[in-house]
Amino acid sequence: ASIVLLPGDGIGPEITQQAKRVLETIGEIFGHEFTYQSHLIGGIAIDETGDPLPEETVQACRHSDAILLGAVGGPKWDDPSAKTRPEAGLLKIRKELGLFANLRPIKLFDQLIDASPLRREIIEGTDILFLRELTGGIYFGESSRSGSGVDETASQAMVYSVGEVERIVRLAAQAAKGRDNRLTSVDKANVLEPSRLWRQAAARVMAEEFPEVQYDVVLVDAMAMHLINRPSDFDVVVTGNMFGDILTDEASMLPGSLGMLPSASLGSDGPGLYEPIHGSAPDIAGKGIANPLATILAAAMLLRHSLNAEPEAVAIETAVGDVLAAGLRTADIARGGPSVSTEAMGDAVVNQLK
Amino acid sequence: ASIVLLPGDGIGPEITQQAKRVLETIGEIFGHEFTYQSHLIGGIAIDETGDPLPEETVQACRHSDAILLGAVGGPKWDDPSAKTRPEAGLLKIRKELGLFANLRPIKLFDQLIDASPLRREIIEGTDILFLRELTGGIYFGESSRSGSGVDETASQAMVYSVGEVERIVRLAAQAAKGRDNRLTSVDKANVLEPSRLWRQAAARVMAEEFPEVQYDVVLVDAMAMHLINRPSDFDVVVTGNMFGDILTDEASMLPGSLGMLPSASLGSDGPGLYEPIHGSAPDIAGKGIANPLATILAAAMLLRHSLNAEPEAVAIETAVGDVLAAGLRTADIARGGPSVSTEAMGDAVVNQLK
Ligand SMILES: CC(C)[C@H](C(=O)O)[C@@H](O)C(=O)O
Ligand SMILES: CC(C)[C@H](C(=O)O)[C@@H](O)C(=O)O
Repeated sequence: ASIVLLPGDGIGPEITQQAKRVLETIGEIFGHEFTYQSHLIGGIAIDETGDPLPEETVQACRHSDAILLGAVGGPKWDDPSAKTRPEAGLLKIRKELGLFANLRPIKLFDQLIDASPLRREIIEGTDILFLRELTGGIYFGESSRSGSGVDETASQAMVYSVGEVERIVRLAAQAAKGRDNRLTSVDKANVLEPSRLWRQAAARVMAEEFPEVQYDVVLVDAMAMHLINRPSDFDVVVTGNMFGDILTDEASMLPGSLGMLPSASLGSDGPGLYEPIHGSAPDIAGKGIANPLATILAAAMLLRHSLNAEPEAVAIETAVGDVLAAGLRTADIARGGPSVSTEAMGDAVVNQLK
Repeated sequence: ASIVLLPGDGIGPEITQQAKRVLETIGEIFGHEFTYQSHLIGGIAIDETGDPLPEETVQACRHSDAILLGAVGGPKWDDPSAKTRPEAGLLKIRKELGLFANLRPIKLFDQLIDASPLRREIIEGTDILFLRELTGGIYFGESSRSGSGVDETASQAMVYSVGEVERIVRLAAQAAKGRDNRLTSVDKANVLEPSRLWRQAAARVMAEEFPEVQYDVVLVDAMAMHLINRPSDFDVVVTGNMFGDILTDEASMLPGSLGMLPSASLGSDGPGLYEPIHGSAPDIAGKGIANPLATILAAAMLLRHSLNAEPEAVAIETAVGDVLAAGLRTADIARGGPSVSTEAMGDAVVNQLK
């Protein structure tokens, strides 16, 4: 299988490096031939080519089996008047590869439960799989500016089609069947027309194709509440691009260890893209202290979803749990206690696998 | 002063009744002449007139000094194919009266700190004032449907003008000056054109008119995180309609006692509208167990912002704190301990004032 690495900016290269070592180890143990190619994305791509997603990167991704991304962005490219931004590379690759479904499992490692900002009795048992629609909605709606002075206005459209809703809801319902068989769809149907279409299309798919899956709908504002006071009540949650952006980030705080959370972005065919949830952390880039575990867990998702290698994925997840149980912590999850380097954490997972 | 009461649906009438008693008590003690008129809004208005906001209600509100609202909505009016919804009344009254600023203080009563889902060390010291823009953005943008089958699409536009941004940011900056002098503006400028306009307009107002106020910007997804892991870092937060809906509801969970949180909706002149943050709680309506304190605290905001009666507002807030300190709890904040009725809680505040 051919894997494209997109290390990106900030701590991206350091953490991607450790995830690659873990994939190499899996290859050795399970007898797979993985090939790796690195390509440019984000700020470093702007610096070297002027484009946050050079065509060469797109082509390499298209011809690969799976993509592992580090992180993009940083203050260097934050100038609001800049022609282009690192994030544009991220948005474009999602669109170019048709990666319409962003999967974010929010799960607690028992070893880290005290890192949660929530009281133990509330967070315990939390295990949510979010599916965020990733190539539609207001992110890709038409935008415009007009007028001047105090009357200058800017506009951008939230748009959803029935087809877009159906495919993400189907994927979510299928995922629910492999889990606790419960799906929650989140919208703002009391205010937004695209949400009303979403709610209708989702209800139809669920009634016709997945009558056996327990299904309910929640308004986005209510969901923002529920995630805090009863996160353990949810199984699979599906929502649009903008609401998903906000809710998955909110949910990512619940375990208290952002450095542990991976995500996958999938299309209907072609390669999936896997990455940690966290950003490029420019403040600690190059110091060798970043936590590589989210990226390593993203590599596990890559094996599961793109390479159909479930035992390999589980091997990585188990190894990560074991390493945590043995007490190893990078600085971000050490809560002031002793911590190890990015590389030492990578070593530990590799050794645990062997 | 003339006060319009809009009891609305569910527990609305019960809690509004107690807040009215508290206002009457304040009138007696401080020698004010308050007059009260009740009018229809929401589901009950649909039932009685077919319109969730009858013209008579609008006129009465226009000619009043301030409006106290209970809550609207309930399963009875939830049919998605219904011609109109209770919430439409709420959206319309905001627009009709030009109530462009929704103020939501998120503050912990020390007596209730253990009700928070967050660990004590994280929530302690939290005291945020949100200003949500309430008459613009995607809530009031043009919407449409077209096509059919899987190609049917629905669209709604997020629109902001410089003038709309300026007036809410000014109000927020003024509020910050009376508090800890810090303002955070929340947007999604890395993706949305209206957010870029928002960011530019806000920066200009702050630089030109409020150089002495500490000002920063945060992306909405990041803010959804910060509210959970460092809520006590924020003073005043200003944001658009949709982001404000989600973030203020998220924040309202932090104290762990939704039944304690009031809100105010203000225009540039004319009456303000005051209400509890919580909904109509149809499941407990009519049982006499709803918590009236959020509505009573909304009455305090009414005195402060619309009647320029600061000592009167403080008297109510102090009385509520005292009643809690004395151990009185309605069921929602009793955490399984003994609880009192809606009316008994109203009695307690009235007696404490006297
Ligand atoms: C960087 C940004 C454009 C992006 C998004 O909003 O989708 C990020 O927040 C994410 O969630 O992957
Ligand atoms: C009922 C609904 C339309 C309303 C809103 O979204 O504004 C409510 O959630 C609120 O926040 O007051």
